[in-house]
Amino acid sequence: MTIRAVVWNENVHETHNKVVGDLYPDGIHGAIAAALNMDAGITATTATMQEPEHGLTAARLAETDVLLWWGHAAHGDVDDAVVERVAEAVWGGMGLILLHSAHFSKIFKRLMGTPCNLTWREAGERERLWVTSRSHPIAAGIGDYFELENEEMYGEPFGVPEPLETVFVSWFAGGEVFRSGLTYKRGAGNVFYFRPGHETYPTYFDANVQTVLRNAVKWAHNPAARITAVNDAPNVPIEEALEKIEQRGLKLHADGEEGFR
Amino acid sequence: MTIRAVVWNENVHETHNKVVGDLYPDGIHGAIAAALNMDAGITATTATMQEPEHGLTAARLAETDVLLWWGHAAHGDVDDAVVERVAEAVWGGMGLILLHSAHFSKIFKRLMGTPCNLTWREAGERERLWVTSRSHPIAAGIGDYFELENEEMYGEPFGVPEPLETVFVSWFAGGEVFRSGLTYKRGAGNVFYFRPGHETYPTYFDANVQTVLRNAVKWAHNPAARITAVNDAPNVPIEEALEKIEQRGLKLHADGEEGFR
Amino acid sequence: MTIRAVVWNENVHETHNKVVGDLYPDGIHGAIAAALNMDAGITATTATMQEPEHGLTAARLAETDVLLWWGHAAHGDVDDAVVERVAEAVWGGMGLILLHSAHFSKIFKRLMGTPCNLTWREAGERERLWVTSRSHPIAAGIGDYFELENEEMYGEPFGVPEPLETVFVSWFAGGEVFRSGLTYKRGAGNVFYFRPGHETYPTYFDANVQTVLRNAVKWAHNPAARITAVNDAPNVPIEEALEKIEQRGLKLHADGEEGFR
Amino acid sequence: MTIRAVVWNENVHETHNKVVGDLYPDGIHGAIAAALNMDAGITATTATMQEPEHGLTAARLAETDVLLWWGHAAHGDVDDAVVERVAEAVWGGMGLILLHSAHFSKIFKRLMGTPCNLTWREAGERERLWVTSRSHPIAAGIGDYFELENEEMYGEPFGVPEPLETVFVSWFAGGEVFRSGLTYKRGAGNVFYFRPGHETYPTYFDANVQTVLRNAVKWAHNPAARITAVNDAPNVPIEEALEKIEQRGLKLHADGEEGFR
Repeated sequence: MTIRAVVWNENVHETHNKVVGDLYPDGIHGAIAAALNMDAGITATTATMQEPEHGLTAARLAETDVLLWWGHAAHGDVDDAVVERVAEAVWGGMGLILLHSAHFSKIFKRLMGTPCNLTWREAGERERLWVTSRSHPIAAGIGDYFELENEEMYGEPFGVPEPLETVFVSWFAGGEVFRSGLTYKRGAGNVFYFRPGHETYPTYFDANVQTVLRNAVKWAHNPAARITAVNDAPNVPIEEALEKIEQRGLKLHADGEEGFR
Repeated sequence: MTIRAVVWNENVHETHNKVVGDLYPDGIHGAIAAALNMDAGITATTATMQEPEHGLTAARLAETDVLLWWGHAAHGDVDDAVVERVAEAVWGGMGLILLHSAHFSKIFKRLMGTPCNLTWREAGERERLWVTSRSHPIAAGIGDYFELENEEMYGEPFGVPEPLETVFVSWFAGGEVFRSGLTYKRGAGNVFYFRPGHETYPTYFDANVQTVLRNAVKWAHNPAARITAVNDAPNVPIEEALEKIEQRGLKLHADGEEGFR
Repeated sequence: MTIRAVVWNENVHETHNKVVGDLYPDGIHGAIAAALNMDAGITATTATMQEPEHGLTAARLAETDVLLWWGHAAHGDVDDAVVERVAEAVWGGMGLILLHSAHFSKIFKRLMGTPCNLTWREAGERERLWVTSRSHPIAAGIGDYFELENEEMYGEPFGVPEPLETVFVSWFAGGEVFRSGLTYKRGAGNVFYFRPGHETYPTYFDANVQTVLRNAVKWAHNPAARITAVNDAPNVPIEEALEKIEQRGLKLHADGEEGFR
Repeated sequence: MTIRAVVWNENVHETHNKVVGDLYPDGIHGAIAAALNMDAGITATTATMQEPEHGLTAARLAETDVLLWWGHAAHGDVDDAVVERVAEAVWGGMGLILLHSAHFSKIFKRLMGTPCNLTWREAGERERLWVTSRSHPIAAGIGDYFELENEEMYGEPFGVPEPLETVFVSWFAGGEVFRSGLTYKRGAGNVFYFRPGHETYPTYFDANVQTVLRNAVKWAHNPAARITAVNDAPNVPIEEALEKIEQRGLKLHADGEEGFR
């Protein structure tokens, strides 16, 4: 069975800006989905903010192995309920790949617990992404580095928690560096942040970027059955303890007294 | 100058339940603050949920080096604005120590980005905390382990991100284990979760627990000046780039056109 | 193509001790290989210390995707040259799974850079392994825990570096805990330490242990081409720099002078 | 009491090469020790390879809180017994700071368990070190970055394990990046690798570099009593188990039979 990837896009620049619309006639989501579908092991579809529930209903998420997220101008317009739904899906085992300006998306900030801020500059400068973890599955097929001739600059310090692994670090012509490929785990869900992808450059048509995205989808896929009760905190009754024990010590509640909650 | 610690408590059980009230006549916050003040290097005061703004005004947080948090029955009553204020203080460099049932506090879940759930049992069973990181500053003065004869059980799996370091792992008489001492960093702030501390047991009068708390306050203290603009994402103009570069490539905005945000 | 696993065993207890010989008539290596071969995706063979070059020639390692290592009484008899050869294979991408008393093997200590010590007791006590990372691929098919009725105890503190992830933590009847499943990466190689497996108990016939071993082999497998020049530190000549630069500053060597090495 | 730092240097270039000798008339070790001694909280002395036991006798290490290590041309001449002695001191709690070409020192490779390789170029190019962990104590007093106008280039991939924290990432004029400040823990010892410091440039006279070194000494200092029996793996007799248990299951040795070791 193939990995079911969903490419989500706010889909705003494409429809409001001629430069972006000309560059990505099928939308950034369309370009990415096409790149993913080049791999026989992946079946990619798309969802956009304009669809009901942003295209991310509970039913859709239940059938999504890995979600990719592109957002920029409309982070604030994303419904908090959908964000929480996506977070729960990740905790349950859905993979999540955050693309470029999604560093400031509600869902990334929600999962990181940090501001996720950085410095930036839109100068079309050269970016060179160095692999810092040789033979990492996300970097399969990439040599020691690859270049993007025109990209937006993102600079350190990047306001994220220390990752599980740093896979890419970027060099920028203007003098900055950035940890451009970072892995995390949140609950049962694998999370990958990947820096490139400014809307006015043809980044998602770049062969190396496409390779990384296909790799990342496979890496992020957790084949385990989705955990549904992700927030449960079950009581283990004394009589069901795995080792025989007896009630001891003071108790919060007298017998028959009701609990606070 | 001493480290300024503030012990925050929801202060509900002490005033609503005779067992807890008798055990902690000065409140759990009072007991902990007294234990911290035994160290000449720490000046501990208290704050409770019932005070205006829960006792955690911006001014108070600005003068707090390390905040300790105890909550249980009233997590839901904590004002979201105060939670966000505390999160920003942590990102700016304030230390935060989460105690026992604070695993389910809004602030811990906010900073972890995960459900922070676990299993539990209130049987007054024996807990033995093993040090898994020898000579860690938080475990200074503790041998390889210490015991609490009566404690609530918390069991794995614990729904938190992989920590920077695992300092304690607990053994429970009923057969469970738990990662009881975990360190994290969120922005410039050091974060420590410490498991023991059920309200119906005299845990905070235990000498080893008090030692750990004093150690943790010192460990969590970041002497750097508090970062205030924790969410800033500054633009670096091309003419201020550290290496000389020129504008290239397509641009989102025509000259004079206004931005989306 | 299946994953090529090699199960290495010092093979001493089986041939010198009747208890172990009766329990594992095909050797511990034979029992483990049989368990792995139950998975159609794995082809497992064995190697023992008594073979030439301990059965781990360069040619054999080049055809090994994942090596499993069991040793106890004869750690000191393992040839240092073979240890270094295995280390280089790991750095190049071979997976390595260390079993039980292999915590004190030369290869594990070599890769960890620490003493890898612990406390222990041979009492046949109950061990319960709790999953601390839900839905981790190594724990696939295991619930929240599994039990081994008779095992040797290993206790904390365990003298290893902080792992990438803690997958299992053990509870022991005698009162100790142990981080029983730990993941590491060394170079391109995935490394997993798995605690159970004392030679006088039928641990490797346990269904859950076998499941974990099969999972671990799949997790540890890095499909990337093996890196061979794992120690190379190539000079990048100025004229081949990716950005145009010129020689500046003082130089160690006058023109024509020879280097120290 | 001040922190007792020892700056170790192979002390070869200074005495064999006029360029280096003129630049560091007191040796690189002398320059670094002088920089450390500017801090009233640090007492720095030096040791060189030419001294008996390389100046690192057991007695000397027992009185050393933090060891700094500079080596390059003579890694192979360092006595393996001294390397092992230093490793044991680190496991016992001594801090260790590896400088520049010490990436290839025996002690760093011993503690990392990896090749520690990289790419390099001696072109006197500009290096800019970016802070990737805001307000980290090692970066205290440094802004978001600092520059070294002439340095040797070290490039990724850097063959080290994933660190506890990445504190600095370097940008190089020639197009490479490098993780230049990495923290590790090995046993009870804090370990910091800091990239800059090529012998033909005045790097150790740079104010920012000196600030980082002083910060790093304070960060690496573990005030806990030195653990001496770092390799011990004590047996816990059944009759001393913390919970009452009885001998069960098969045993390796019949009563009175002798062990294999």
